[in-house]
Amino acid sequence: MTAQVYAALSPDTLAGRLGGLPVLRERVGPPEGWQVREVGDGNLNLVFIVTGPAGAAVVKQALPYVRLVGESWPLPLRRSFFEYHALTRQAARDPGSVPDVWHFDEAQALIVMEYLTPHVILRHALVEGRQVAGLGERLGQFCARTLFRGSDLSMRAADRKADVALFAGNVDLCDITENLVFSDPYFAATLNRHTPGLDGIVARLRGDQSLKVAAQHLKMAFTTRAETMLHGDLHTGSVMVTDTEARVIDPEFATYGPIGFDVGMLIANFLMAHLSQPGHERVPGDRARQQDWLLSVVATIWDTFAAEFAHLWRTERRGILYQATLYEDQGHGLAAEQALADLMGQIWRDTLGFCGVEMHRRILGLAHNADFERIADEGRRAACEARALAMGRQLMLGAGAIPGIDAVVRMARRIDKEDHL
Amino acid sequence: MTAQVYAALSPDTLAGRLGGLPVLRERVGPPEGWQVREVGDGNLNLVFIVTGPAGAAVVKQALPYVRLVGESWPLPLRRSFFEYHALTRQAARDPGSVPDVWHFDEAQALIVMEYLTPHVILRHALVEGRQVAGLGERLGQFCARTLFRGSDLSMRAADRKADVALFAGNVDLCDITENLVFSDPYFAATLNRHTPGLDGIVARLRGDQSLKVAAQHLKMAFTTRAETMLHGDLHTGSVMVTDTEARVIDPEFATYGPIGFDVGMLIANFLMAHLSQPGHERVPGDRARQQDWLLSVVATIWDTFAAEFAHLWRTERRGILYQATLYEDQGHGLAAEQALADLMGQIWRDTLGFCGVEMHRRILGLAHNADFERIADEGRRAACEARALAMGRQLMLGAGAIPGIDAVVRMARRIDKEDHL
Repeated sequence: MTAQVYAALSPDTLAGRLGGLPVLRERVGPPEGWQVREVGDGNLNLVFIVTGPAGAAVVKQALPYVRLVGESWPLPLRRSFFEYHALTRQAARDPGSVPDVWHFDEAQALIVMEYLTPHVILRHALVEGRQVAGLGERLGQFCARTLFRGSDLSMRAADRKADVALFAGNVDLCDITENLVFSDPYFAATLNRHTPGLDGIVARLRGDQSLKVAAQHLKMAFTTRAETMLHGDLHTGSVMVTDTEARVIDPEFATYGPIGFDVGMLIANFLMAHLSQPGHERVPGDRARQQDWLLSVVATIWDTFAAEFAHLWRTERRGILYQATLYEDQGHGLAAEQALADLMGQIWRDTLGFCGVEMHRRILGLAHNADFERIADEGRRAACEARALAMGRQLMLGAGAIPGIDAVVRMARRIDKEDHL
Repeated sequence: MTAQVYAALSPDTLAGRLGGLPVLRERVGPPEGWQVREVGDGNLNLVFIVTGPAGAAVVKQALPYVRLVGESWPLPLRRSFFEYHALTRQAARDPGSVPDVWHFDEAQALIVMEYLTPHVILRHALVEGRQVAGLGERLGQFCARTLFRGSDLSMRAADRKADVALFAGNVDLCDITENLVFSDPYFAATLNRHTPGLDGIVARLRGDQSLKVAAQHLKMAFTTRAETMLHGDLHTGSVMVTDTEARVIDPEFATYGPIGFDVGMLIANFLMAHLSQPGHERVPGDRARQQDWLLSVVATIWDTFAAEFAHLWRTERRGILYQATLYEDQGHGLAAEQALADLMGQIWRDTLGFCGVEMHRRILGLAHNADFERIADEGRRAACEARALAMGRQLMLGAGAIPGIDAVVRMARRIDKEDHL
């Protein structure tokens, strides 16, 4: 059906090579009628949309190098294996949250899955000023369900340990996160770039020793605290939306890590969307409603995450941690609530920290985001980015003292009116 | 040489089955001249001492069940595999700290190693009132070197992740720790037992909700924080000594976990040795010098651990965490010191917490220790154990407020004079 030796697909070869796959014949129709487009706009992979008389499918194939950089940066095909395993677990833990997986070919590093239509990448929708009904609720639920159900709070201990071992193999994608998120932004690493007008604030951040200590504490948390299976790259480019629906894609960075990591990354990307809006104004204030909505999504993500996590804690806590045997069964239900409050406090502080580093690395590191990049005027872009940098620092260093998500929203509103260049 | 199907050795069959092993012939001499004794006094395994004209060796073989309990509690032979891998890593990270391994047979779950003589088990020596010169320094060094060098502070990230995956397979021995150390002591689990006179204090501890929350936070730290390769069972029964030397044995519980775990367990066992001394008095006060020495060992273990860890931090920090690239290379050496202080603070708090649970589980759980068990008079034993229980609670709940090891030593001296029944 497919060759055992890896070869990258192309629109011309795809039907010839995958035309025999029963699931594609069933979902798309006979291969003679297929149209194939390559649409990958991410940094790493090939993505084909295959359409035909019976329907459509996505074929995602890893390349043996980083697409954004080229063949000079090799990257193992094996990331496709981790993406496949993450997708199947996410589907089980939060049904309907991710595309249905129809076929996996390990040798070809290839996943055949549901084609989401008329979905678009959330980040592009946000840049255009579009809104999505129920977005914060959906993403907050996704985080709570996948993060709770991938942990020792829920899984059989032996199963979690087996998954820790499995995802510990995702070395190369973790290496990208470890370097590009947690270290490179904080010194003049060769892959970095930033908008020229930021030189002053960048020098101040890279001279800030407490900030650099906080960043490395977060890096240690990321590498050592195997609390749950993370998506690992949960930004607004990893979400596809219609006006009323959201699905999460691209979990190839999946690894075991701290519960707050995904939540923090996700919130960071909405805060950056918020702080980038002035750069997209045509008339002063014409993005004000979009900004309000973006901050409402930030608040709703956290509130929904916290509420759903607490709900799962109270109804599905069947793992080896905080067992009912010790608490509820002894008439000590309040002890379980006390433990939950402690744990949520830790997750909150972690969330703020990871949120801060994500805001830094998207402006100072290799992988920038469209929210800022599409602001053509460098001066306006720098002004927006400087605010995000300042806010990231405040989240990282203030994590222990920021009382709740409302304080974060207020901080974003205030900083949006300030000059941080 | 040995059969591929596992079979437990006996003194009668050992020479016949292992007589062909070149390393045994070389180290012990021709098998015709071997004497074989089974000396295992631990809870889990067979241990044979093989002596002959050329020397001696130890043959340690796992049994497929818990020796302490019997065949009703099966336990995989695979623990021998983890012990072997832990021993080789400890030998590399702290040369001379563990017995030399000469041969490993995975199918027979069998390790052939150096026979330590005239070494005795440290716990027995302590019960008898013996002292070991340089003990605290040696054990503090062992902790610092193995724990630092098994972490992302030192290892290549890919190697550490591979070891995390490897030791994640040690499910069954982790399960013992997870249940017997962190959960069973805090409710009336079926395997528990305690000295009858303790009923009152035991009821108070099991009704203490904050204590039970703290115990589960420590359990979560143990299961999720894969900071370094732990010995995993570092008590005074896992150390063999002469009057001037100490070697660490039996790392079959090895797993990735928090740096403070081994240090806390070890210190707990010296604190219990201290608090048990009044039970071994023949004349009031005849153990006072031994008590002073035991507390000096407690202080020296921590002080040496902290000093050696800091030394390695300053001279061998070549892993992916807290890189010199970010600190020293930028003229920010003080940032590295700031990060070290933060990390040592965390390790210290963890150490106190794990120290506390170990003091509880040795008195309330399944596996008791000779320090207390050899006090024949139940009333005296209960009085000593009650002090240890009270101290364990204070360490677990006060971890954030106990300033240093001197405060722990003062606490032990004070509690030793109090009645906690």
